[in-house]
Amino acid sequence: MSQLSEFIAYNEDKKIVAVQGLGFVGGAMLAALSNAQDRVKNKPLYAVLGVDLSTPDGLSKIEAVNEGRPPIISSDPAMPLAFLKAKQQGNIFATTDMSVFGLADIVVVDIPFDVKKTADGYDVKLDLFLESVSELAQHINPSALVVVETTVPPGMTENYLYDIFKKVFKERDVDDKEFALAHSYERVMPGANYLSSITEYFRVYAGVNDASSERARIFLESFINTTDFPLTRLHKPAASEMAKVLENSYRALNIAFIQEWTEFAQASEVNLFSVLEAIRMRPTHHNIMSPGFGVGGYCLTKDALLADWASKEVHGIGLPLSCEGIRINDVMPLYTLQILKKLYGDLTQKHVTLLGVSYLNDVADTRYTPSEIFCNELEKEGAIVQLHDPYVADWHARSEKISNTLDDLKRLQHDVLILAVRHKLYCDLNVDQIVSFFPSVNCIVDANNILSEEKATTLRNMGIKVLGIGKGHWLCQSNPK
Amino acid sequence: MSQLSEFIAYNEDKKIVAVQGLGFVGGAMLAALSNAQDRVKNKPLYAVLGVDLSTPDGLSKIEAVNEGRPPIISSDPAMPLAFLKAKQQGNIFATTDMSVFGLADIVVVDIPFDVKKTADGYDVKLDLFLESVSELAQHINPSALVVVETTVPPGMTENYLYDIFKKVFKERDVDDKEFALAHSYERVMPGANYLSSITEYFRVYAGVNDASSERARIFLESFINTTDFPLTRLHKPAASEMAKVLENSYRALNIAFIQEWTEFAQASEVNLFSVLEAIRMRPTHHNIMSPGFGVGGYCLTKDALLADWASKEVHGIGLPLSCEGIRINDVMPLYTLQILKKLYGDLTQKHVTLLGVSYLNDVADTRYTPSEIFCNELEKEGAIVQLHDPYVADWHARSEKISNTLDDLKRLQHDVLILAVRHKLYCDLNVDQIVSFFPSVNCIVDANNILSEEKATTLRNMGIKVLGIGKGHWLCQSNPK
Repeated sequence: MSQLSEFIAYNEDKKIVAVQGLGFVGGAMLAALSNAQDRVKNKPLYAVLGVDLSTPDGLSKIEAVNEGRPPIISSDPAMPLAFLKAKQQGNIFATTDMSVFGLADIVVVDIPFDVKKTADGYDVKLDLFLESVSELAQHINPSALVVVETTVPPGMTENYLYDIFKKVFKERDVDDKEFALAHSYERVMPGANYLSSITEYFRVYAGVNDASSERARIFLESFINTTDFPLTRLHKPAASEMAKVLENSYRALNIAFIQEWTEFAQASEVNLFSVLEAIRMRPTHHNIMSPGFGVGGYCLTKDALLADWASKEVHGIGLPLSCEGIRINDVMPLYTLQILKKLYGDLTQKHVTLLGVSYLNDVADTRYTPSEIFCNELEKEGAIVQLHDPYVADWHARSEKISNTLDDLKRLQHDVLILAVRHKLYCDLNVDQIVSFFPSVNCIVDANNILSEEKATTLRNMGIKVLGIGKGHWLCQSNPK
Repeated sequence: MSQLSEFIAYNEDKKIVAVQGLGFVGGAMLAALSNAQDRVKNKPLYAVLGVDLSTPDGLSKIEAVNEGRPPIISSDPAMPLAFLKAKQQGNIFATTDMSVFGLADIVVVDIPFDVKKTADGYDVKLDLFLESVSELAQHINPSALVVVETTVPPGMTENYLYDIFKKVFKERDVDDKEFALAHSYERVMPGANYLSSITEYFRVYAGVNDASSERARIFLESFINTTDFPLTRLHKPAASEMAKVLENSYRALNIAFIQEWTEFAQASEVNLFSVLEAIRMRPTHHNIMSPGFGVGGYCLTKDALLADWASKEVHGIGLPLSCEGIRINDVMPLYTLQILKKLYGDLTQKHVTLLGVSYLNDVADTRYTPSEIFCNELEKEGAIVQLHDPYVADWHARSEKISNTLDDLKRLQHDVLILAVRHKLYCDLNVDQIVSFFPSVNCIVDANNILSEEKATTLRNMGIKVLGIGKGHWLCQSNPK
């Protein structure tokens, strides 16, 4: 008897949920679903199947899950615990075998929908995504519920995916009147609360019809704390899809807005952080963004483009303002480079050490990290790039070794330090430590509000040039040697 | 003995505050200052002098103040009460005589700083503002405190005004080492809470030096409830000036952002209001804006331009994203016109009735109202424009009579109603009233979320075409006759 049939037999009393795609969202969904409890019978609610591709990456994720480990590394201690528990309960199993979709009562689609940025815009790659869904349709039980969690261009679930399912079901000659399809987007966050950002947060959903919405609601309530985080049902899948890309475009545009004002404030020798604190006193303005080094991650860097594509493709309209937000954010790290060039004129052979490579504080995630464009352009200027990050072991985008401990840096020369990411390690450094790890440093650019004014002043008194981006330190200090 | 010298003699125990400019902000400041109490002696704290120009408008404001009436009409009952009290207390006096500035311990500058929009951008008119300040400097006591409340390009107080004062004091050959100058911006709102938006709200301030900041703080604390609404001191006047234009640019850009998504949602038949409600569940997104008819008023329509001007003028940078927000908002009302044109093709001789002329609900204020561009362009299309507003008596921008009661409209023909402003009167209308006031109406465009879905459905069932902007009603209804 195969492992799979053993798994099915062992879990015959449970509903089966399959998760398609074991990436950042799918990984957390496996943990949430395998740990969901039947509150009446007080036992695990679901038998959970994880499905991924037979690529090296897919296979390593499958292996991890089957060994009781998370497929994605994170700093959230709840994740390894959840996978260990699932392994002990015997209600999780991962495979490349697509035919398992036929066993599932519910399928969660967590495969990526990718956008490739080009020199003059972007390319939306529909084919890969639609082929994966088509494959799912070939295997799925036609009375299953499919919940699409992937962030997609608004209209995708109803106008593309529903048609694929109906067409394939017709080819398969199966009765699909029980088939249910809904979109529901996650708001998962990497970091220490990775798992609870699935189970303890607000959710939006919408089905292609009332029965689909109702089945989606019941499913979402089974693993989300909807008492404290009530669900919102929307009137059609396009509304749920739009909510996701809209909320991320909003955030991205507001970061771009602050970048524009950062450059103005810096030139005016105004401390924009103080200005923003004053503005945040107004309850209507409390969430205004802060200056920073750049924007990364999978959502804020592209979601507006998905919406722009849908708006252009279907209605000939487009979302130029939202896209401009993305464009501004994409080049935001070059403002730090511009400051370096103003300071030094020529960066040839300058040893520039970047503290922080991931796109977010205290995570190892380097997806679309702003460090990439910064390092590439810095290198074009002839500088010697040195990298440190306490979380990132290797970074496919660049060939340098990344130092993981500050001690590793002691033996290197450092002309300039760039404080790029608000990792706790960097925020906690005191002046003595900074001077001891970087004795040769001539200039520190604090690109993410990491140094207190007190530390900055002490360092300046020691003859080190300290520039805080958004702090208005640009012209008020004399140039470094 | 003159009225002025009587006034001064009568108030000899009080400090004298002069307010330069009795417009929208100056008017409310007169009320706040004349009603401020000396908490120890339990009597009025200030003798308040209002100064305006000897233009017809200035003279009528001065007359109002001296008769115990507010210089600005508003719906706030606290305003007439405050002026009546001041008149009874005998501690308010208004005049065109600039020499009274010489008597003042404190001068508040509330004169406008204007920007004129042009076909290809905008013109900043510095001269008028600087001349007024120069005139103030001619007369002022050189040990007075000047608090500039006018919204100005960041840098203005320190880089322009301070120089004018110092130059004029030198010409006058007076000792100015006690002179104090600060910027502190108001966040005054028209409407029912007009006066308390001065006295019961957060304030930001910054002086040109420590002594100026300290005197500004003491002054602000004397008429603002700083226990519940603490002051924020910033490090330089440019920071205070920047905070004001930044917070308004933020709001304007976020309205423009929603306009872009409104057009996408409308084309996608998605109810954007529901989508936004779902997004507002996130505490970080609770203040996301809603679709509407347009943007008006004195601040949101221009403040980004002041900042853009300063950024270009001084640093050669500019704020293109913030300016793009202004540009989008300026033409926002044309989206409603575009919808009408799609519906009817030709608008010649159509009777279009605009419900709401002011720029904001339940105020009479028509400054930069979005109705203006809408009416002008509608007329170019050959339509017959009819106007209603319960608050606006006359509107300098257009020659039509504005009906102030709905009864006045009964005798007119109405092909299309545009619900433009969320005046309570319109929100409260029931379906029977709508049909009785507008029996001939063929189409209603709800441009500001005024009709409930229930009312819209009832009206549709009666054969009336109802389109809600942002409601996704665009394609899902058949065209009207």
